[in-house]
Amino acid sequence: MNVRVGVIGVGMIGQDHIRRITQVLTGGSVTAVSDVDAARAGQVAAGLPGATVHDSAQDLIGDENVDAVLVASWGAAHEEQVVAAIRAGKPVFCEKPLAPASDACQRIMDAEMAAGRRLVQVGFMRRFDAGYRAMKSTLDDGGIGAPLLMHCAHRNPSVPPYGFTTDMIISDSAVHEIDVVRWLFGEEIAAATVLTPRRSSQAGDGLQDPLILLLEMASGVLVDDELFVNARYGYDVRGEIVGETGTVALADVSEVTVRAGNRCSIVPVGQPPQTPPRGDRVPVDWRDRFVRAYDTELQEWLNAVAAGGATGPSSWDGYAAAAVTDAAVEALRTGRRAAVAMPERPDFYAK
Amino acid sequence: MNVRVGVIGVGMIGQDHIRRITQVLTGGSVTAVSDVDAARAGQVAAGLPGATVHDSAQDLIGDENVDAVLVASWGAAHEEQVVAAIRAGKPVFCEKPLAPASDACQRIMDAEMAAGRRLVQVGFMRRFDAGYRAMKSTLDDGGIGAPLLMHCAHRNPSVPPYGFTTDMIISDSAVHEIDVVRWLFGEEIAAATVLTPRRSSQAGDGLQDPLILLLEMASGVLVDDELFVNARYGYDVRGEIVGETGTVALADVSEVTVRAGNRCSIVPVGQPPQTPPRGDRVPVDWRDRFVRAYDTELQEWLNAVAAGGATGPSSWDGYAAAAVTDAAVEALRTGRRAAVAMPERPDFYAK
Amino acid sequence: MNVRVGVIGVGMIGQDHIRRITQVLTGGSVTAVSDVDAARAGQVAAGLPGATVHDSAQDLIGDENVDAVLVASWGAAHEEQVVAAIRAGKPVFCEKPLAPASDACQRIMDAEMAAGRRLVQVGFMRRFDAGYRAMKSTLDDGGIGAPLLMHCAHRNPSVPPYGFTTDMIISDSAVHEIDVVRWLFGEEIAAATVLTPRRSSQAGDGLQDPLILLLEMASGVLVDDELFVNARYGYDVRGEIVGETGTVALADVSEVTVRAGNRCSIVPVGQPPQTPPRGDRVPVDWRDRFVRAYDTELQEWLNAVAAGGATGPSSWDGYAAAAVTDAAVEALRTGRRAAVAMPERPDFYAK
Amino acid sequence: MNVRVGVIGVGMIGQDHIRRITQVLTGGSVTAVSDVDAARAGQVAAGLPGATVHDSAQDLIGDENVDAVLVASWGAAHEEQVVAAIRAGKPVFCEKPLAPASDACQRIMDAEMAAGRRLVQVGFMRRFDAGYRAMKSTLDDGGIGAPLLMHCAHRNPSVPPYGFTTDMIISDSAVHEIDVVRWLFGEEIAAATVLTPRRSSQAGDGLQDPLILLLEMASGVLVDDELFVNARYGYDVRGEIVGETGTVALADVSEVTVRAGNRCSIVPVGQPPQTPPRGDRVPVDWRDRFVRAYDTELQEWLNAVAAGGATGPSSWDGYAAAAVTDAAVEALRTGRRAAVAMPERPDFYAK
Repeated sequence: MNVRVGVIGVGMIGQDHIRRITQVLTGGSVTAVSDVDAARAGQVAAGLPGATVHDSAQDLIGDENVDAVLVASWGAAHEEQVVAAIRAGKPVFCEKPLAPASDACQRIMDAEMAAGRRLVQVGFMRRFDAGYRAMKSTLDDGGIGAPLLMHCAHRNPSVPPYGFTTDMIISDSAVHEIDVVRWLFGEEIAAATVLTPRRSSQAGDGLQDPLILLLEMASGVLVDDELFVNARYGYDVRGEIVGETGTVALADVSEVTVRAGNRCSIVPVGQPPQTPPRGDRVPVDWRDRFVRAYDTELQEWLNAVAAGGATGPSSWDGYAAAAVTDAAVEALRTGRRAAVAMPERPDFYAK
Repeated sequence: MNVRVGVIGVGMIGQDHIRRITQVLTGGSVTAVSDVDAARAGQVAAGLPGATVHDSAQDLIGDENVDAVLVASWGAAHEEQVVAAIRAGKPVFCEKPLAPASDACQRIMDAEMAAGRRLVQVGFMRRFDAGYRAMKSTLDDGGIGAPLLMHCAHRNPSVPPYGFTTDMIISDSAVHEIDVVRWLFGEEIAAATVLTPRRSSQAGDGLQDPLILLLEMASGVLVDDELFVNARYGYDVRGEIVGETGTVALADVSEVTVRAGNRCSIVPVGQPPQTPPRGDRVPVDWRDRFVRAYDTELQEWLNAVAAGGATGPSSWDGYAAAAVTDAAVEALRTGRRAAVAMPERPDFYAK
Repeated sequence: MNVRVGVIGVGMIGQDHIRRITQVLTGGSVTAVSDVDAARAGQVAAGLPGATVHDSAQDLIGDENVDAVLVASWGAAHEEQVVAAIRAGKPVFCEKPLAPASDACQRIMDAEMAAGRRLVQVGFMRRFDAGYRAMKSTLDDGGIGAPLLMHCAHRNPSVPPYGFTTDMIISDSAVHEIDVVRWLFGEEIAAATVLTPRRSSQAGDGLQDPLILLLEMASGVLVDDELFVNARYGYDVRGEIVGETGTVALADVSEVTVRAGNRCSIVPVGQPPQTPPRGDRVPVDWRDRFVRAYDTELQEWLNAVAAGGATGPSSWDGYAAAAVTDAAVEALRTGRRAAVAMPERPDFYAK
Repeated sequence: MNVRVGVIGVGMIGQDHIRRITQVLTGGSVTAVSDVDAARAGQVAAGLPGATVHDSAQDLIGDENVDAVLVASWGAAHEEQVVAAIRAGKPVFCEKPLAPASDACQRIMDAEMAAGRRLVQVGFMRRFDAGYRAMKSTLDDGGIGAPLLMHCAHRNPSVPPYGFTTDMIISDSAVHEIDVVRWLFGEEIAAATVLTPRRSSQAGDGLQDPLILLLEMASGVLVDDELFVNARYGYDVRGEIVGETGTVALADVSEVTVRAGNRCSIVPVGQPPQTPPRGDRVPVDWRDRFVRAYDTELQEWLNAVAAGGATGPSSWDGYAAAAVTDAAVEALRTGRRAAVAMPERPDFYAK
């Protein structure tokens, strides 16, 4: 079966997903696009034979040549678009965040539960990364015993000098660890605390960078997450779970080792195949590092849609991410531990 | 464009390529199959909606719903099938070897040159592996200076106890290094020598395992290749190019590091996403290790066919592999250095 | 010059230092011993030709054949013995802690300042480890920019099931990181907080294991230190300093890599030469890991004594370790951040 | 016991051994020196309180204040000096080569056998390196099954532009692998072959660099040894033994990992403690890499001398190294396999 996808929002991320569906993955095609910038929508559609440009997300969702919807618009628009897709009975892949606020996420869940079946997948791609999957299978197989601790680091080389706030370190960066630790440990986050170490002189005005986010899982597993968005030397995501009898850590994945000029350097994987990796560098950004995870994420979505089902991070996961983000932002502001306000998980979202 | 592929030979390898085209890659479908075992062809076709079963390779090649042909039959049948595809003007992907003997490869080249354009891609998948590509780009970028030496190892955990001969260590295993070093260095192999170390007691009756194959490139670059088909501990492919100012080596690619039971073990990548890697092992076979290279190989073939062209290893490369294999087998038998008998490369195959 | 050393306390650690001075290092000999267990002192002296057994530490310190004193007795006895050595004008190496309480350390400093020259070296051996020294030189050379954060882990395979209290995780284990971060960053620790993650079921009754100790340096550099004394899989000490432009981490030091049984394992260095390392394990305890650091520590002490001077961790460092330990133990008890009560460093102890 | 050592030859290597005995190791002192350059001998003695300068090696050997002799003179002088020490009944440590020609080594063995006990240790320091020792213990413990192959590489950054001949790549560099493989496998080398790859343009006039030396052990184990004396990027010694069930390899030993400037580099151990390693380089020479092996080698010699015995590489090992070197040089000249001419090992030298 071929899944006909309508894409709402064709900025950088939307275009990247379109490239993926049309040039990399199997079982999908892009038949419709829309964007608040109509000219941009037209330009993108020009490269997609047979694709329709719609003036509004609503029209795109209603298009009978659209089987499933991919939402890559501005976060504030997600709620309305995702709910409309649900009401149209169409599966929807929504880039993170599901919605910026947890009450909006709640309304999405309400709509989905009213629809009676899972229709929403949220774009937390780390669950599809081979490294995190290997960590989870090692943990689930009992290879390190019961988990006690996890150490994470999430480093970006830089962020734009203006417009990037300290809150965004939580909502844009830490949200990935917030989701992935819930998935790795199969339990909720009970509380968050934010520590503010010495500030990098490389950080923009007013930006507190780096941060340490502490997450307490319901079982008491403690996660510390270093967030550093001006790390300069490269993009680097690290993780180590400490269990009762051993540990499992993301490796420094590399394809080759180069010895030259009195150095021995490793070279990361993750570069897209069309730009073969050069000898001696760490990844430059998240697309580099997670290129395969993005591919796997969207392929599994297409497969699930074709099978009439849904997979991966759900609306509940989107809700939980928003609730924990809220608590972490509060913790950042107050300098204190903030409990996460979460209702019981609806049975609808039980695995 | 969708490339409609006809598959000749639906044993293990043929079925794996069908899975790839239908479930993993984009831009292709399987519309016809044939096999010497008609029942097997029928069974495979049953899982492919709309696919035709043909009684003969000739009929499949002539099918107007077949745009391109994938040959995964017994090596002895390749010549006739590939030449027929060429004469039908259809692009053909032929699993290695192109043909078991170099004169048969020559006849394929003659047919392709008569057709006036490249139609053949030979299935040497290592050229599509991210590690070898990173080695080549490091070399080509001057990162290690002019190449002087290369050390290779090619280890399989085991081979069937009967029917696997010492010649096959050359023709089945070493042929991968024979092709990849020609590609890495962009030059021909001038001579081969085979050394016979102490024989493993794990090797089957009459099998000389391991071997060391020495390959002399035209420029004098010397390649040593350890071939060990009963290495027991896992599947392991190694390579290091030594240049005038540095070296580049395939890394021990792993996703995670596990510390448990007084060990610190790395875990390889390469497992198919549907079977997430478990903590602490090396790859078990070539599919494990090269799963992504196979995907890339066939995707690039589909892309090239759709664009009306051809890519990757050519008939000339298939011919050269056969000629070097012949020399290496002679060297194994005589215990002496054997020069490779190679004509000048036809301009048709110049890059 | 040969330094004649008198050793007070000849339990496991004292005997190990005696072995070091007599069989490994140069420039020293052991001429006198004393111990609260006179029989043990006699047995140890029997293996040391010409060594005198003294009934008391005081007598040993007064022995004219003793140039320098090594204190390896019970911590509670340190103050009296170290002060006596100072008053005798003899250099003294004191195993950690300098004294269990900071006021006792203060009295030692007072005695040393009254003596007018540095006579005391405290046994914090990590400052002499090649890994920490490489971290410090990378940091000091500007290789990673100004430091912002440090992540540490200190894991022991197990502790005795009885008698090991949670406070001792701070005073016995964490004290090593407390000293080494002061040295790495060249500044004092301002405050400590202790986090209590999920408790390992492998921990003895009443033991809260693992802990996370947070240390705030005066400049704002934040250190997190995982302390886990029942880690089971081995002895493992980790550290990574995050700077404004890069990071430097202790490597998994190993001598060999073993591939067998579908694993690829690294093998640590650190074993004493007389027991060559076996293939595939992590260190079993601190002596394994820090054997060379201990040797270097004591050799540099002998050299400094021979030169009439002192080196390495001073009484001030011993005082600071006690003050920070006090704060950390308070933080453990209260569950809150505890400021470290430290006076200005006396000029006497300026570098 | 203190071993009073007389040192013959106080050039760079002799001075380094003197520094070791006087400043690093225990149980030895230098009481006499001699050198063909009397002025140099005098200068060196000036730094050694109480040491006598002798006009001749003979006088030094006869000095009653000399318990044991360390020969670090020119290779051509070794035979006479070592034999004289044997005849004087004094243990002698002789830097490699024991003697440049195997007949001279034979005469040394004859003298030693006539003396009735082992007195000679030859300076092959790799047997004392922790990495090679870990390889040997893994092999001897059965961790990789019976050995079949070994891959070695021995790379120096550069050699002097004049005066360094291709023969010296065998006699100065390869001799280390020649000795260490005899020790690792506990058997003799039966034959040698030399391969001449493409020559580095960085090599001096007339120098064939790199070489591949093939060594056939008596049991059929095959060793390939890359010798590259203008490798430029650093000093690098590699080794991997391939056994029937696994492999063991020297690791890239490093103390720290540095991430900066888009690289992830490892940092080697091996630097002398007085010059702590800086972040991101490979060793620059053999002293860097093998500093600890040299220390261990000479300490174990002092210990053996003090115990009245001998240890490590014997005259027979020196003889074997010369015989294999002769064969390898012949193989280099003829381009053919050369059998090693070796008599049966005298029972005197059985372990």
